[in-house]
Amino acid sequence: MANFPTTLENLINELTKMPGIGRRSAQRIAFYILNVPRTEIQKLVSSIVKAKESICFCKVCNNLSDKETCSICQDQTRQRNSLCIVEGPSDVAVIENSSTFKGMYHVLLGSLAPLEGKGPEDLKINGLLQRIKNEQIKEIIIATDADTEGETTALYLTKLLQPTGVKITRIGLGIPMGSNIEYADSHTLSRAFEHRKEVKS
Amino acid sequence: MANFPTTLENLINELTKMPGIGRRSAQRIAFYILNVPRTEIQKLVSSIVKAKESICFCKVCNNLSDKETCSICQDQTRQRNSLCIVEGPSDVAVIENSSTFKGMYHVLLGSLAPLEGKGPEDLKINGLLQRIKNEQIKEIIIATDADTEGETTALYLTKLLQPTGVKITRIGLGIPMGSNIEYADSHTLSRAFEHRKEVKS
Repeated sequence: MANFPTTLENLINELTKMPGIGRRSAQRIAFYILNVPRTEIQKLVSSIVKAKESICFCKVCNNLSDKETCSICQDQTRQRNSLCIVEGPSDVAVIENSSTFKGMYHVLLGSLAPLEGKGPEDLKINGLLQRIKNEQIKEIIIATDADTEGETTALYLTKLLQPTGVKITRIGLGIPMGSNIEYADSHTLSRAFEHRKEVKS
Repeated sequence: MANFPTTLENLINELTKMPGIGRRSAQRIAFYILNVPRTEIQKLVSSIVKAKESICFCKVCNNLSDKETCSICQDQTRQRNSLCIVEGPSDVAVIENSSTFKGMYHVLLGSLAPLEGKGPEDLKINGLLQRIKNEQIKEIIIATDADTEGETTALYLTKLLQPTGVKITRIGLGIPMGSNIEYADSHTLSRAFEHRKEVKS
């Protein structure tokens, strides 16, 4: 298969390691890298190196950050007594994008998956109880995924945090906006009925 | 949209410039870059830099090469009087992979697309006539794509090279192996009839 020069084959192989990139996409990206001006490649390489060097986890909430404490934890204008627990940094990003939540986050950096051997010790829950006490949290919103792992994690957290006496809520599970009930699966429908909410005119 | 630290946003933006990579894929790749060991990233970055620095076009056939002349042009065991004209280096790679052709190549680095303003001057046809004469080519196989641009290019090359007196052939156009005539489009079918070949028992 040495049809391309070795350095190009090496590049294609390295690119194939990236998630979602097969041999064909890697080849297209490699040709892009060969064709694009050198300055563009310098920008690409320096952005990789800089991100790798500067990004760490916020020491308070475990969100991605380029400082010790992330911008959300530093933001004094946020509602500091509301804590949203999520699985990963991309969840924070997507919730922030929706502008619906103005409180604080706690990122677990994972979810419980007993079958894969991922237990509570693999999640960042150390100091969560302490944080809830110190920061005088009034509501804990569990926003883990609606899949098996996320649900297991939500259940575990509920049991763990119940003794704090703080109000614990789970984000609404049900029919996504814009979709038809006709096409909803039975699992989603059953959750939608559980999560029904009283309406008043 | 500054939900991620700036350096991470920069990385995602740079990744989005790559072909076939949208915001979501870029985000996944960025997280991969953050999670993977530092040595892996050094390998990725050095493969990008090395490929960018070392890969050039072969001065004989315009194929990608890490030397002045590519490995195919240097290979003295190949059938040097048969010349296959293709649009790009990936065409060479895929033909080489099929092990059906043992001759030489000429890479045009493009195809004629009058509507996009791409004319013969944008193709590497300089020196092609000279090459055909010097290397005593006996057969020219036109292996440009079977799309409008490729067909236009094939027509142009046929007219250009006819005066050399060398036998010019176009690769077979028709029903791809493993597919049903029932599902073939009429354009492909009409070409398949044009490219029909006498069979003998």
